[in-house]
Formats: sequence, structure tokens, C-alpha cells
Amino acid sequence: MNRFWSPLVARLHPYVPGEQPTRADVIKLNTNENPYGPSPRVIAALQAEIGDRLRLYPRPESDPLRDAIARQHGLTREHVFVGNGSDEVLAHAFQGLLKHELPILLPDITYSFYTTYCGLYDIAYESIPLSDSLEIEPARYTRPNGGIVFANPNAPTGRALGLDDVERMIGASDRVVIVDEAYVDFGAASAIPLVARHENLLVVQTLSKSRSLAGLRVGFAVGQPHLIEALDRVKNSFNSYPLDRLAQVAAVAAIEDVDWLTATCAKVVATREQLAGELAVLGFEVLPSATNFLFARHPRHDAARLAADLRVRGVLVRHFTKPRIDQYLRITIGTPGECEALVAALRALL
Amino acid sequence: MNRFWSPLVARLHPYVPGEQPTRADVIKLNTNENPYGPSPRVIAALQAEIGDRLRLYPRPESDPLRDAIARQHGLTREHVFVGNGSDEVLAHAFQGLLKHELPILLPDITYSFYTTYCGLYDIAYESIPLSDSLEIEPARYTRPNGGIVFANPNAPTGRALGLDDVERMIGASDRVVIVDEAYVDFGAASAIPLVARHENLLVVQTLSKSRSLAGLRVGFAVGQPHLIEALDRVKNSFNSYPLDRLAQVAAVAAIEDVDWLTATCAKVVATREQLAGELAVLGFEVLPSATNFLFARHPRHDAARLAADLRVRGVLVRHFTKPRIDQYLRITIGTPGECEALVAALRALL
Repeated sequence: MNRFWSPLVARLHPYVPGEQPTRADVIKLNTNENPYGPSPRVIAALQAEIGDRLRLYPRPESDPLRDAIARQHGLTREHVFVGNGSDEVLAHAFQGLLKHELPILLPDITYSFYTTYCGLYDIAYESIPLSDSLEIEPARYTRPNGGIVFANPNAPTGRALGLDDVERMIGASDRVVIVDEAYVDFGAASAIPLVARHENLLVVQTLSKSRSLAGLRVGFAVGQPHLIEALDRVKNSFNSYPLDRLAQVAAVAAIEDVDWLTATCAKVVATREQLAGELAVLGFEVLPSATNFLFARHPRHDAARLAADLRVRGVLVRHFTKPRIDQYLRITIGTPGECEALVAALRALL
Repeated sequence: MNRFWSPLVARLHPYVPGEQPTRADVIKLNTNENPYGPSPRVIAALQAEIGDRLRLYPRPESDPLRDAIARQHGLTREHVFVGNGSDEVLAHAFQGLLKHELPILLPDITYSFYTTYCGLYDIAYESIPLSDSLEIEPARYTRPNGGIVFANPNAPTGRALGLDDVERMIGASDRVVIVDEAYVDFGAASAIPLVARHENLLVVQTLSKSRSLAGLRVGFAVGQPHLIEALDRVKNSFNSYPLDRLAQVAAVAAIEDVDWLTATCAKVVATREQLAGELAVLGFEVLPSATNFLFARHPRHDAARLAADLRVRGVLVRHFTKPRIDQYLRITIGTPGECEALVAALRALL
């Protein structure tokens, strides 16, 4: 322990994101980016904003963006919080809404950043096992708790709960229940329509996946105004201006271009179903996916070895060395051509 | 207290930034933005980055930017941390380096976000009064402490310490001493050359002021690698990708265009000295400034009233209702034309 560090630093378990190679010649199916670029309206909005006005601070509360998101859901800006990627939104939510005396509950297999936030803010947690089929079972979330957080669809499994089960999860806590919907646009039902009747529901989404803006870092949360106020108070004690001018105008354009979103997601979903079929033919067990990735294992091939062998062949996929899922690969849906290249590489390896 | 909030939320004292009016017809001398736009190389770099690659995550560690900053100071990237504005950098530094058993020390008059961070991370602090002439006096920082933080030049006073005094401050703690140099390029000496011989020195700078990029949110810290490692650990427990793709390329271009920086700062400094003279003629007492703003009071006119009257005339300046400085106005240096308009408005009011 370095004597200059705050004591908490030594106990942190930083999140490790998927590799971001700087080589352009790899097929990158490891960080769930969208294979298609953002809406042309995003590009136009960015081009219009570049210039001398970058000398001026952005709007601290990102009102036009919050209005654009609110409009889509028949809500007001007081129901919307925005941040520098959904990771920042989640961080503020953990600090501002999930730190109570009782531990929070979360699935044993889910986005691993959640337990990292618990370390950062000294929040106790208990892991609730997924079922044998790697599904969240609401009936398991019965113990007293300081809140619940889960991803729907879940990551890295790709499996989704229906809204009836989401509502069971919301009812399982008298603190806040966070539903992280990073992948929801690829095939699950959003819980945002439930916000009006659940005072403890916070839904978090990102523009990184379905809206092809991983490079711009915009995420948001939707909940009743009293929850958003807590996030605002934390944000305004941390950074007055979390979203820069370019991210704000790009995000408004991305939110408003619903047709682009719909068309892009439809292409990704079609490729996903095609790839799932081809992986099954190769002998993989593929979990049903409501996301832009597949979670699959091969009964006769070690996953870590497969990931390493694919890497040698210029294809990156994600492998987690975590109990229960260490024989799975998480494979991002790329373009049809990228997925064909993956299948060809696998054929040569199996 | 809302039952869904973490208990800390109720005790937060969020920072209140200067007003960001959406009207274009005001003369905005209230948030210390640069009156001149960013380097043309920044604009070119942004235009080159806009496109489909925004679908891809940015480099999580911002290596090219850290390299560019390090090169300017004869250091390595391991000496540099970057964040989403210097406010985020400071927040991580408070959490990761300043939370010890003893209270930290800071000036009673300084950037008011520092005590906000103390609230967010539950860090005890003691305020050390500035001298009667509103200067930081290193001899006052003698008590045992968990670290020291101050701005140099200080804000909102505009007064700077020389490096000999900065070194006295560094020697006054056996924990970390943070020197916040947001305004240093307008007339003070940076402590970055001292980093090599002080293991407890962290220097924080921003691209918002001298490099005209308030709209893009980039700040950085320079210190020995063991301090940077603490910041990295906090950052990677908070948000893997704090700087988006556009901010990263723009910041590299801004850092590398030293000529633009030098020329812009020279213009601002010349206007500052001109304005200081004119304010003196109007009867103001003007503190010597090493920044892009002036801190001034009029012995016969109430500052709050003056600020309100200026506002009616379309000129925004900043007024703080804080003891010791509530008779001062903080006036950002605008273009010569904007400063002339301010002087004309004051002439009509006094």
C-alpha cells in the first residue's frame, strides 16, 4: 500500500474492458460494438457544431438531450438523467441510490462492473445465482436488501426477462431496482413504460450499442423525478459538465432518428439468427439471445483455447475466466461478412 | 430525506457553475471562457475523426493524448492522467489520494468545488484563511494534514504564488499536494517541472481555458507514476472510457499547437492589462491577475447590485455571495470589444 493513496484504492478491483486493438486488420467481435455506423443525422449534427463555439462550456444539464429522450417516452426532462456513457450513469446511481445498510442483490453472472462500483463506494452485495440455464429467476430475490441491479437482457448471457418478471424484480425491493438495458433494442421489452407506476424503478440505457455511438460516450437513466434528483445531486458534486457539446448534439440526432435505429437493429438481429444457426451446425450450444451478441459453448472444445486460436487467425471474441461461464465465448454480431469469416475460422479449428 | 436516496445524497452541497445563457446577444464574462476559438488544427482533427468509426469505443487509456502531454514536459505517459474535464480529474484525485484520517487543508477562498468533493467522498477539511491581501500564505499551512489542495493562480482572486512558495506548500504535507493550474498559462509558472523531485506533487490542468476547449471537456494531471496509478485505479472502477474519440483527437491537436496557445494567451493578457487600467480609472480596486479574469471591487458600489445592473445591460459577470469576497466581481477577459462594452456599461452605472 502506497502511503499517498487513500486506503480504498488498494481494495479496488478495476473493471477490465475488452481489448481495443489499434490494428485495423482484425475482425473485432469482442466488445459488442455495432457493425454499422451512426445515423447520417448524427454526422450532420456534429459537423454543424464544430467550430469556435467549442470555446464555450456545454449546457450543464443537457436539457435538449433530456427533452429528446423524454419525448420518446411521453415523459418530461425531470424523468431523465444523462451521463458520460451508461457506466458513469451507473456509477452515480450506485453511489446515490444503492448505498444502504442492507446489501444489494445482483445476479452471480452479469455485467462485472456492478461489483466494481460496490468496491468503489463500499457497498455490500450478495450474488444470487442464475438458474442452471443461466436465467435470472425473480423468485430467488426474496431476502431483505438495499436495492437490486441487473441487466436485461443480461450480459454476457444475452438472455432476457419479460416485463412480468421485471415487475417481480421491482417488487422484490423496497429500495431502488436498477434495470440496465444496454442491449434492449436488439430484442427485449424496455421497462421504461413501467416507470410511471413504480417509484423505485431506474432504467439505464446507452447510445453505445444500438445507436452506434460507443465512440461518443452517452448513456441515460429514466425514473421518477425523485430518483433523478439524487443522480443530479451526485453529478453536480462530481462534474458540472459531463457531456461535451459534440456528444450532446450527436445524441439528440441519434435519439430522434428512430428509423435508422430500427433498420440497424433489424440487420443485426437477422445476422444474429443466421450466425446462431451456423454455430449450432458446428456443434455449439448457443443461448437464445436478445442482444447484439451470442453466448455459446462447444461441448468438445475448451473456450479459452478457442478464443486464443481465433485470435491467431485475426478474430477477436471475448472469453471470461469466471466460474460457470469459463467454457463460453461471447461473440459480438458483426456484419454478415465478419460473421462468415468467424465461421470459416471456426470450421478450420474444430 | 427520500427513503430511496443513499444517506450521503442529503448532505451534498452541489457546485453551482456560472450561468450558461442560451441567448446569443449577451456579453458573457462570467465563466472564464476564452474569447478566441480553438486552434485550426483542432477543427481539422475533429473533422477527420467524424464518421463511421464513432461506432467503436475510444482508446480506454487515451495513450496518444497522454503521450502528447508527456512529451511537452520531458516525461512519459506513466506521469499523465486524463479525464473528462479537470473537474473529473480532481474528483478522482480527492477520492483516490486525499481521503486519510487527518483533514486536508485548503484556502478559505478558492475554487468552491473542492469542498463539494469533500462532501461527496466524506473527506474532512480545514480552511486556511488567505492573507488580508487575498494571497495564499504558505507559512499558515503548518498543521498536520491529510493533504493540501489549492489553485495556482488562485480562483477567484487571480493571484499567483511563485514556484518557491509552491514548493513550500508541497513541503507542508507528507501526503499529496494538489496544485490546480487551470489558469496557469495566462501568467504563472507551472509546477510540472517540480514533479520529478516531489513524490507527493500532483499538478492538474485543463484545456477549457487557455486552449479554448471548454466545450469538449478535457483535463489532465501530471505526477509521479505511483500517484497516477491511484487515479487509474479509481478511473477504471468508475468509467473505462471517460474521453470520447472526438475529445481525444481534439486534445492532441490542441496540446501540440503551442504557437496557437502562445498567441491566444498573449492577446488575452494584453486585453487584461488594458481592462485593469480602465477599471482603475473608474475607481475599482483591481487585484493583480495571472489569469484570464480580473477580481475587482468598487469602494462605493455594492458588488451584487453592480452585477445585477450589468446583467440588465446585457453583460454577465460573476458575483459570489461568500464572506470576504462578496464585494468583488469576477470579470472574464473577453475580446477588446467585449471589454469596451463592459467599461461603457460601468461608466453609465457608476
